Amino acid sequence: MANSSSGDSVLDRLVRILGAFNSQQQALTVSSLARRADVPRATAYRLVDSMVNHGLLERRENGEIAVGLGLWEIVNRSASANDLKTIAMPYMEDVNQVVQHSTQLSILVDDEVLVLERLSRPGHAVNSASIAARMPLHRTSMGMVLLAFSAPNVAEQFMKRHAEEIEEFHKDFRRSLDHIRRNGYATFDGFIDEETTGAAVPILDYKNRAVAAMGIVVPRDSNQLPTAIAALRTAARGIGRALASVPDEGELRRRTQ
Amino acid sequence: MANSSSGDSVLDRLVRILGAFNSQQQALTVSSLARRADVPRATAYRLVDSMVNHGLLERRENGEIAVGLGLWEIVNRSASANDLKTIAMPYMEDVNQVVQHSTQLSILVDDEVLVLERLSRPGHAVNSASIAARMPLHRTSMGMVLLAFSAPNVAEQFMKRHAEEIEEFHKDFRRSLDHIRRNGYATFDGFIDEETTGAAVPILDYKNRAVAAMGIVVPRDSNQLPTAIAALRTAARGIGRALASVPDEGELRRRTQ
Repeated sequence: MANSSSGDSVLDRLVRILGAFNSQQQALTVSSLARRADVPRATAYRLVDSMVNHGLLERRENGEIAVGLGLWEIVNRSASANDLKTIAMPYMEDVNQVVQHSTQLSILVDDEVLVLERLSRPGHAVNSASIAARMPLHRTSMGMVLLAFSAPNVAEQFMKRHAEEIEEFHKDFRRSLDHIRRNGYATFDGFIDEETTGAAVPILDYKNRAVAAMGIVVPRDSNQLPTAIAALRTAARGIGRALASVPDEGELRRRTQ
Repeated sequence: MANSSSGDSVLDRLVRILGAFNSQQQALTVSSLARRADVPRATAYRLVDSMVNHGLLERRENGEIAVGLGLWEIVNRSASANDLKTIAMPYMEDVNQVVQHSTQLSILVDDEVLVLERLSRPGHAVNSASIAARMPLHRTSMGMVLLAFSAPNVAEQFMKRHAEEIEEFHKDFRRSLDHIRRNGYATFDGFIDEETTGAAVPILDYKNRAVAAMGIVVPRDSNQLPTAIAALRTAARGIGRALASVPDEGELRRRTQ
C-alpha cells in the first residue's frame, strides 16, 4: 500500500475521511473534513475528488461532501447486518403497531449495543436509539439482555473491563443479570432519559444465547409495560424461529462471542 | 494516488472489491474476490488484509470475506438516503398494516429505480424489490410514477435513451405517463412477475415533483387494489408534509434531476 512520508496509507486516510461523517455531520466542507480526518488539506482535496469520482462520496450543490449513494448501495445490498434486520422487521412492525412506541433491534459489538434498526411512531416516547448508533451495554435494557444471554465469559470480561462505570448504575450487577435470565427480559427506568422506561428481550439461538436484542421505550409510569413485554416476547420467539430456518444465521451470533 | 503499473489506483481496486459483493454473494473467498474484482491475486490478498484491519471488510470463520460491519455503521449513520427512509417509515408501516402486502420506497437514480426500503409481511405477494436493489424504470409502477412526476426533460431524455426497451412494454409511453399524472398513481399487471399487480404513488415536493415513490405489490386479480391505492395516496401525502418540514429535504430530489 502506498504510504505518505508520515506512514499514513491511502486506506488509513480513506477510512478516517469516511469516519468523519455521522448523523449530526452528514455533509462537510473539504477543509472541515480534512481537519476532522486529520489529513493534510491538499491531500484531502485530491482524495475527496477521487472518492467522489468513485461514488464513495458525493458533492452536494453547496459544495459540501457527503457519504455517496454508491457506497450506501454496496453496503446495503450485501451486508449481513441487513439479513437479521430483514427477518426481524415484520415482527418488529407487529410490536410497533400493538404498543405504539418505537421498537429497536440491536446486537452486541465491541462492548457496546449497536442499533441495527429502529421503527418509530409519530408521538412516541423520547428514544436515543437511532440506526447504526452505539449505546453503552450496562445503561440500556437491550445491552443488559445481550449480556445476560451471552456466553458466560462475555459478561465476566465486560465486568472486568468496565467495573467503575458499572458500579455507578448497578448495585449488584451479577444479580441484575441473573434476574434478567430468570425473567427472560430486562426493564430499566430512565437510564438514558429520565422520562422513559426501556424494556428488552433477547432473540435466542438454539443454545439459548442472544443473537440480538429487541427493545422498546415507553413513557415512564405508563401502564404499558406489561403489554409491551408480552408483545416483545412473542415477537422475539417468532424471529428466533424464522432465523433458525436460515442456514447462515450463525454469522451475527459468532461476532458477539 | 498511488498507481500500479497498470494505472490502477488503490481506490479503483478498493471500489471494485466492494462492488464484487451483492445480495447473492455476501461472502467470497479472496481468490474469487480477486477474480470478480479483476485484481491480481497477490494484490488482492494484501488489499483485503488492510481492508479487514480497517473494518471495511470482515473475515468470517470459514475464511470468506464479507462487507464489514464497520462500513455498514459509517454508511448507515450518515447517508442522506436514510433520512428520507426514516421520515417515510411510520407511514409505510401504516400502509403495510392496512394492506398486508409488502410496501417499498424508492428513488430515481441513473435511469433506474433504486429501492431504499422495503417492509414485508409474512405470506405477502411475490416481490422482487429488495433493499438497495435496482429495477427498470419503465417496467415498474414505482419507476413510471417517478418518471411521470419528474421534470419534463427527465422523461423525454429517458425515452431517447431507452426507446427500444420501452416499446416492448408500452404502446404509447407518453400517454401512459399522462394517464399517471392525471390519476396521481400508476398500476401495472405482471410486468416483472405475472402473478402480481404493482401500484405506486409519488411523494411530492412543493413543486409537485416526485422526491420518491412508494409502491405496493398485491396478488393479481385480487380486489385489494383500490384499498391499496387509497392507503398509498394517504400515506404519501403524510410523508410529503413531513418532508416539507425538514430543511434539507431537497437533497434527494436534486439528485433525480
